[in-house]
Formats: sequence, C-alpha cells, structure tokens
Amino acid sequence: MRQSQLFTKTRKHAPSDEVAKNAQILIRAGFIHKEMAGVYAYLPLGLRVQNKIKQIVREEMDSIGGQELLMTALQRKELWEKTKRWDDNVVDVWFKTNLKAGGEVGLGWSHEEPIAEMMKNYVSSFRDLPIFVYQFQTKLRNELRAKSGIMRGREFVMKDMYSFCLNEEDHTRFYNETIEAYKRVYTRLGIGEDTFVTFASGGAFTQFSHEFQTIAEAGEDKIYLNREKGIAINEEVLNEDTLKQLNITRDDLEEVNTAEVGNIFNFGTQKSEDLGLYYKNEKGEQIPVWMGSYGIGITRVMGLLVEKSGSEKGMVWPKEVAPFSVHLISLSGNNEEIKKEAEHVYLQLVERGVEVLFDDRELRAGEKFADADLIGIPIRLVVSEKSMAEGGFEVVDRISGRTEIVPESGLVEFLGGN
Amino acid sequence: MRQSQLFTKTRKHAPSDEVAKNAQILIRAGFIHKEMAGVYAYLPLGLRVQNKIKQIVREEMDSIGGQELLMTALQRKELWEKTKRWDDNVVDVWFKTNLKAGGEVGLGWSHEEPIAEMMKNYVSSFRDLPIFVYQFQTKLRNELRAKSGIMRGREFVMKDMYSFCLNEEDHTRFYNETIEAYKRVYTRLGIGEDTFVTFASGGAFTQFSHEFQTIAEAGEDKIYLNREKGIAINEEVLNEDTLKQLNITRDDLEEVNTAEVGNIFNFGTQKSEDLGLYYKNEKGEQIPVWMGSYGIGITRVMGLLVEKSGSEKGMVWPKEVAPFSVHLISLSGNNEEIKKEAEHVYLQLVERGVEVLFDDRELRAGEKFADADLIGIPIRLVVSEKSMAEGGFEVVDRISGRTEIVPESGLVEFLGGN
Repeated sequence: MRQSQLFTKTRKHAPSDEVAKNAQILIRAGFIHKEMAGVYAYLPLGLRVQNKIKQIVREEMDSIGGQELLMTALQRKELWEKTKRWDDNVVDVWFKTNLKAGGEVGLGWSHEEPIAEMMKNYVSSFRDLPIFVYQFQTKLRNELRAKSGIMRGREFVMKDMYSFCLNEEDHTRFYNETIEAYKRVYTRLGIGEDTFVTFASGGAFTQFSHEFQTIAEAGEDKIYLNREKGIAINEEVLNEDTLKQLNITRDDLEEVNTAEVGNIFNFGTQKSEDLGLYYKNEKGEQIPVWMGSYGIGITRVMGLLVEKSGSEKGMVWPKEVAPFSVHLISLSGNNEEIKKEAEHVYLQLVERGVEVLFDDRELRAGEKFADADLIGIPIRLVVSEKSMAEGGFEVVDRISGRTEIVPESGLVEFLGGN
Repeated sequence: MRQSQLFTKTRKHAPSDEVAKNAQILIRAGFIHKEMAGVYAYLPLGLRVQNKIKQIVREEMDSIGGQELLMTALQRKELWEKTKRWDDNVVDVWFKTNLKAGGEVGLGWSHEEPIAEMMKNYVSSFRDLPIFVYQFQTKLRNELRAKSGIMRGREFVMKDMYSFCLNEEDHTRFYNETIEAYKRVYTRLGIGEDTFVTFASGGAFTQFSHEFQTIAEAGEDKIYLNREKGIAINEEVLNEDTLKQLNITRDDLEEVNTAEVGNIFNFGTQKSEDLGLYYKNEKGEQIPVWMGSYGIGITRVMGLLVEKSGSEKGMVWPKEVAPFSVHLISLSGNNEEIKKEAEHVYLQLVERGVEVLFDDRELRAGEKFADADLIGIPIRLVVSEKSMAEGGFEVVDRISGRTEIVPESGLVEFLGGN
C-alpha cells in the first residue's frame, strides 16, 4: 500500500485523557481511534494487525479440530437465569437493554450458556461427540474502570473456544492439546518465552484452572514463578496447600507482574446439567456432556505486544503480526532516478506477494523515519542516493538491529517473495 | 472438510416459530441457529458463506480505493445529539444501555456520526481528501417486528462505506464508481440480472438517493420497473414529478416485489456542518467536507439468495459464495475399493486447493443426497460402483443441471484445482 493513500496520519500526542501506554502509541501511530474509555475503533493498520493475530489463533485452533462459528451479541435473559448468571450481583459486567417488542436482553460478555443451549440441537448420541467450536466475538463488558487501553476494553475481541466431550478422560486429552496449541500461538506472537502456564483457581470440578500469563510491567496480575521448574502460580491460589502439591516452597518463587493472555477452564458436567445438555451412551443412559472453555483476548494480546516493545519513539511488531512485512522508504529528494527505482521495486515486491507499505510521500527523511519508528514494521527498506552508491537498498531488521545493503536483483528473494 | 466431522446435522423441520423461508432452510441445513426473533448465530457452513460474501464486497470496495476499518458497537450519546439522531422519535431502532461508570450509551445501528467525528483527526487540508473507508459491522437495530429471517435482523452484518470529498464534483464521481462496483458485486453474487438501480427519496442535498433492489417474492419493497429502459422507481418517489423527469409514464412501469440489497446516499455537507468536519482549501478558507454513505446488507443478501433458489428440498448456492466448491459423495456401501477411491480423490483435491465437503458418513444414498440438496453446494461429485463402471466420477452441475462422467485423472483440472 502507498502511504500517501493511507488516510491515517501519525500524531505527536495521544489524547490527554488516554493513560495507557499501549493506546497512546497505537493512537499516535494511527492504528486505533478512541471512541470512549475502553472502546476503540480499529483503523486500517490496526485492523490488519488484529486480523493477523486472529489468523494465527484460527490456524492453531483448526489444527486441534476446532470448528469456527459466530454466536450473537444479543442474549436471552431466560437462558442465563437457568445458570443463575443473569443477576448483576453474580456477573457484574452485564450491559442490558430492552426490546421494543417487549422484554429485557443482555449483550454477550461470554457465550458458554448460548453455545451449550444450541448444542442440544446437535448432540443426542455418544456418536455426536466430541465437538470443539470457537469464535472471534466482539464481547461487551460493562467494566467500572477502563484505564488499560485495549488491554481491558468495554468492547473487545476475544477468541473463545468450547469443548464438549463424552467424559473426563476425553476432556482432559483435549484440554492438554489446547495447552500445547496455546503455546504455539504465543510463540508465533513473539511472546512465547515470557508466557507461562499458571495455576489459577478452579471450579466445582477441578482444583485448578489454567491461565496463560505474560510478563509485562503494565500487567494487572501478579504471579509467582519458578523459571527453572517451569511452575507459575496465580496470587489467588498461592497457599500452603498449593505449594505442597507442586512440591515447591515460597522461597523458590519470584514475584512478577503479568498480563493474562489466555485461560482455560473445566466446567465438568455442571453447565450441561444446568441447561439440560445430555447424550445417550451405548446402554441408552442419559449422560451430561463434559464441557470446557478456552479464551484468548485478541485485542488484549495486541495491546500487550505494544506494551512490551513500545517506547516514546514507537514500537516494533513481531513478524507474523506486523501490518505489513516491509516498510519501503524512498528518500529521493529531487532525484528522479531514485524515485523510479523505488516505484519499480515497490511494484515488483507487491507482484511477488510481499506485503509492503511504501512511503512515497514527499517528506524529509527525518519525518519518514520518525513515522516508520512509530508504525513499527519490522523490516525497513531504504532507497536513497547513498544506498544506491553502496550497491543497492539498505535493509534494516529492526528486531535484530542488523543492517545490510542488498542489490535490487536479490531483494525479492531476501524479503521472502514468491 | 469431512462431513463426519462437521458438528451440525441437517434437520427435517425448522423451529415452529420460524416463519421466514430463508431462515427455515438455513436452520434445517445447519447454516444458522436462531437465538431469538431476528437474532441468528452463524454455524460453520453459514459463516463460510457470510465470509465469502464479505470477501466479494471487500475486493470490489478495495478496487475503488476503499480502506477497511472497524468502528465500535458502543456509541456516545453526545455525538448523536449533535445531529439530533439520539431521540427515539427520530431514530426508532436504537438499543440503549447504561455504563456502570455512569452515563447512557447507544449500540450502533449506523456509523455516519462516529466516522465523521473521527475524521476530524485526519482531515485538515484539501490535500487530505478524498477518503473512502468501509467496514463490516455487526449492527444492532431494535426492530419492533422481526419476521423475515436473516433478511431483517435485530443483529446483522452490514458493509457500510463512507466517502469524504472536497466538493460535489468529486463526490459525484465516486458515487458513480460505487454504483458500478455494486453492480459487479451483485453479478458475482449471481443476482446481477435481477437487481436494479432504483430511484428513492433523497435528502436535503439531492432529490434522489439510489437503492439496489432485487426481484424477490419475499421482498418487503415494491418497485416500478421498466426493464427495457433500465429504469426502476421506488414506491415512495413514484409521482408525476419523477415520471416527468425520467420521461416515462406510469403505464410503462411494471410493479414488482423486491428486497433492498444496497443503498447509496449523498449527505452533501450537512453532516460535516453538524459535526464540524471542515478542511482548508488552497486559499485558506474553511470548507465543509462533502459526505456520502453506501450500504450493503451482507446477511440480508445471504437470506435473499436462499429465498431465490430455495425450495422444500433445499437450495443451490451461486459458485462464488457456496460454503464449499464441491460436495464429494462416496456411495461405497461395503465396497472397500470405492471407499479408498473416494478417500484418495478427496485428499488429492484438497491438496490442489479445491474446497471440498466430503460426505464420508456411513449412510444410505438417499439420506446423503437429501442432505446435499439441502446444503446446496453447486457441484456434486459422486463416486459409486455404478460411476466407476461408467469410467469415473459423476459430476453434477446443479445450476445448469448438466451431468457427466469424468475420469479420476481429469478431475483436478475439471474442478479448477491448481
């Protein structure tokens, strides 16, 4: 894409009421727009990043048998009453509204109830299970405070997956496969090394659930970590009993600030019993379905990536989620040859399948570099009189910091074009 | 995808409270799930169709310079008050709710106001225009009645595009380009021949707006059509004045039932003036931006396709929007050779990039064909003892009705694999 065509422009300052670093940088770089506290629109660059994160998650959920669907924002009151989760004293993040045709409805902050209810149409025999479904849904949560930018929104995108299994054994197998799939997701997102499977409080059916916590200064959580043993414990379950079970002492643990980037939860048969989701086994008996849920906050992860690599100058996106693979910067001044050269390479790269943001604007080098720093595309490709004199294009890998001159003839291959 | 893995199953009957033909068929075929009246979830097959419709629209909007973004569901009251559209007496489809932190918010039924407001961050000089942006947004509209299935939802997906131009001339050029882009969309959706650009009521700035109306029994609109002259007039502007301007008489017009599948609208500078969206021209004068909006109801179009091709038995999807390109049906009975052959061809087609739904279930031929009729994939590929005896696979083009036997060696090419 030509940067001259991109309608967003970078800004020197974020709105003064924006206190979160991730949102400040993303607003300045033109990735998001703040509609109100905790509610952000995604502009072209931001939407590209969001879609790339989704695609990574989609591929990994598909790889363990997930089927994508899309539930609704509007929620039936009656359904949530069955599980006692309509009550604002039980769930304190409901947005509720009224139908003109009469009756109150809720706005989806989670989807266990409607998905389990829907499955009653598709599950009757043991032959129908297991089922794994997931969605990317815009969740609405009526948070009292929303000061963490896109890391805790009143409106945000979440991947939520639900598993429906015959029994605990099948459930556990899928639960563990999901842990591995989540690890692959975080590795591809560039935060694999800083993300830990963390023991958190369970429910009626299990002592523990699991969270995926990523080390981050701006994180709202604290975990207790033993890197050597690969054990992480959420504050809420850090007690004598847990330490004993995990065969570890308090002194072995370091306290770190983290952000929760995923969680997985075992409902056992509780929700199925509440909602009446049963299957017939081989003997003809009615058995409640074993259910689990598995979340990843898509927009929260995006915010976290900014928190981790961002500074006053801008940020650097991990390769798989960058809005474009390459930022081509033409420093032609009045040199028509350089201008033509840049244009030629841009068209060639696009043709060969490389995603390029081409800064074809007539601005000074300093302004172009400042914008590129802010936007954060990991590979910078500069063409100028100087680079041509040195034999080609200057390629800067902003993650490793390595710089080299690559002749035009070698660029497509160097940048991974097809 | 293997049909044995698909969690949805076809159903003999739709829920008794579902009165719309499109939703009845889509529910029976497992494409959608009814959450409540006018509110439907999209199951794997339905989501695939929705995404394909979106992709067609995306490509055509990109081709005229559209930039994709994503605005928010939650809406600021103050903003809509500025244009006097917060009032329920003016806009009768608002869903409104309250923030726990205090204050009332709306749920987006349209996005002109927030998009124009946001553009104040990006438009200051004449050099910043034109700008064309679009989104695929889940709109919420508090419809009093919702009896048309996915053709008029309380929650539905819409493509809405907005144009910001220097003046009327630039606006008109883009408006006309959009008409052509919309025509390409409807042609690709298979309804080009039945869709007419229709004169409808305008606003403060123009006498007419334009709707795209598709002939359909289930449509809620009536238009007056002269096929020969290619003129279509909406009921609301069918008067002496309009007839005179279009140089046509009432007798030249036939009355037909239609569904509105798109509309385009010229706001002139009204909304920009209300919201304060101005640019500086070359003389340094502050000029209000000329604005237009352009909608296509994504899920409505999907419903319309079902209304048009659907019957008691099922439907046939146009090729570009079908959930899969090919429905491979294995009628192996106990013949292991046939089973192996089907399996082999399935893997080969998938490898070569053909989207295949493979009915690998152990069911009778009659049940498989009934399901295939309902699901509506336009190419049916059958392998059986009979087809093999005749020299290969039976390929049925369900749109043309043509049937032929294609040897295995020619299948990939015949089905457009790479």
